[in-house]
Amino acid sequence: MAAPITIALDAMGGDFGASVVVPGAAIALERRPDIRFILHGDENVIAPLLAKHPALKAASEIRHTDVFVKMDDKPSQALRAGRYKSSMWQAIEAVKTGEAHVAVSAGNTGALMAMSMFCLKTMAPIDRPAIAGIWPTLRGESIVLDIGATIGADAGQLVNLALMGAALARAVFDIERPSVGLLNVGVEEIKGNEAVKEAGRLLRENESRQFTYHGFVEGDDLGKGTVDVVVTEGFAGNIALKAAEGTARQVASYLRAAISRSFMARIGYLFARGAFAALKEKLDPRRSNGGIFLGLNGIVIKSHGGTDAYGFAAAVELAYDMSRFGLIDRIRDTLPQTPALDTVAV
Amino acid sequence: MAAPITIALDAMGGDFGASVVVPGAAIALERRPDIRFILHGDENVIAPLLAKHPALKAASEIRHTDVFVKMDDKPSQALRAGRYKSSMWQAIEAVKTGEAHVAVSAGNTGALMAMSMFCLKTMAPIDRPAIAGIWPTLRGESIVLDIGATIGADAGQLVNLALMGAALARAVFDIERPSVGLLNVGVEEIKGNEAVKEAGRLLRENESRQFTYHGFVEGDDLGKGTVDVVVTEGFAGNIALKAAEGTARQVASYLRAAISRSFMARIGYLFARGAFAALKEKLDPRRSNGGIFLGLNGIVIKSHGGTDAYGFAAAVELAYDMSRFGLIDRIRDTLPQTPALDTVAV
Repeated sequence: MAAPITIALDAMGGDFGASVVVPGAAIALERRPDIRFILHGDENVIAPLLAKHPALKAASEIRHTDVFVKMDDKPSQALRAGRYKSSMWQAIEAVKTGEAHVAVSAGNTGALMAMSMFCLKTMAPIDRPAIAGIWPTLRGESIVLDIGATIGADAGQLVNLALMGAALARAVFDIERPSVGLLNVGVEEIKGNEAVKEAGRLLRENESRQFTYHGFVEGDDLGKGTVDVVVTEGFAGNIALKAAEGTARQVASYLRAAISRSFMARIGYLFARGAFAALKEKLDPRRSNGGIFLGLNGIVIKSHGGTDAYGFAAAVELAYDMSRFGLIDRIRDTLPQTPALDTVAV
Repeated sequence: MAAPITIALDAMGGDFGASVVVPGAAIALERRPDIRFILHGDENVIAPLLAKHPALKAASEIRHTDVFVKMDDKPSQALRAGRYKSSMWQAIEAVKTGEAHVAVSAGNTGALMAMSMFCLKTMAPIDRPAIAGIWPTLRGESIVLDIGATIGADAGQLVNLALMGAALARAVFDIERPSVGLLNVGVEEIKGNEAVKEAGRLLRENESRQFTYHGFVEGDDLGKGTVDVVVTEGFAGNIALKAAEGTARQVASYLRAAISRSFMARIGYLFARGAFAALKEKLDPRRSNGGIFLGLNGIVIKSHGGTDAYGFAAAVELAYDMSRFGLIDRIRDTLPQTPALDTVAV
């Protein structure tokens, strides 16, 4: 059996802090028993919660600190007040020192990204890390990146996103040459802004051994699962992600309203409740919780700040899987192996 | 009774041309009997179709031309080959000359926008027209603009979108001071790209009599209906729109799969089929077909190119409603009445 995976948790991050992180870790441990945890945060808060989960307690170690990054701290404030001392920083630093394989935080995204860059540094030739998400599709799942870190990525950065996304897809989906598409407002070469058009030209003209370049894809290709990896600049990617999540909730709400409007429909619901439960599970945003920070010398997973213990557990399991896949080595191997594309790397 | 509305149709536009445009116009005429149509296109194609719809025939006039813009023509090609002569141009020109109140085309968006700008010209101080859509929300409907015309809008252009969107919302929803939000990746002032941050500052600091500025909204606020008008640059807006449409289709597909998986669920479906029919109608993309070109000296409505007669009828009805509302005059009245914001107009 492989050695256990050690996961450093920012136990104080997120809207609910340790009250979600500790039970979330306990759920993840049931499903992935070979995890060891380092819990960074206030021992007075964490220890009583841990006492309720004996198996987790046996697999965990608390590292006390009473400095925490707040959800509304600006990245610069967080760095000033929380560098070295905060639970968020220390979870990331455990990855840097090699004590942990991966760090997970539900804390403020901007602060987590700033601290991750400062502590772990970016992997050459990447200058701006990205956040990748796993997007449920009609065909299964796709990788979408960037979903919020690289606001205004240029053509070279979009090409690097393609390389990192392909490495992630090979690891997660076990596909030799994943297909990669560039998110755009149309599929014709003349469509889009300058960065997308130029990135499209670079990807067309420089064949990669790491992936197959599909061409431009549109917003509705995300849900169809047209490609394994969808590359986009972070502003549009974040808006697409939240628009899709919002639409799924909106349709679910229409469905509830339609079902409750008539007696016959409520009877029908009783017969079909197994199907509705399956649908509900399929649409549960907690199942795909977890943004993967890419382009750093170490893996950091961002959990949604407002999630519950089940959602946090999904982020922990994602962290585990990424470590098992050897994600960092796979990305590091990918980047220098593409001399044609390296010429545009920034 | 008010005078009839005359609508100029590009009868050859769209994936299916007159075979969708003519029956679509017939459906719209049943619901809005005081429309007169001018059908621009090939008389040999249009006349036999029109013969099947006597009421429409009585309300229509054919203007023959055998020049058509193709769906994959670049805007420059379309202008070169189709200016003055094509069915698309002549439909727009009928608005310019005052023969028609509004033009509708299911043709290629880029060509339609280029011809509309060339023929109708933009309304001062607007330099780039926008495409607005009506977005179904949990609270009813919102206006979203731009959904594909102004790729890379700057701060001043975003402020103009707010003004035009507010005028449209006043017309469509009959609200005195609509609420306006700027689409962003977070609600805090420091979030987003430079254009969005600067537009947010301008809108915060310059109160408008035309609308209430709500602040930043995120992708999931679109479906919630948090504000009456969502302002965004066209690249992100187009991607958000298509991601939402794709997600709605994805959820509907999950639902069909869940229902058909078990006998009990299929029984349940029979009881609840009224509810499913209502849901299906609610999610029907044909109901909200029609992009409204804003910022021109005349109204042009873009129908989805791949829609059927019911979808095209929705675009015709939207065209009718916009004319009845006196949209152009309302926008024209709005723009100069806001001296504080005029200073940033481009």
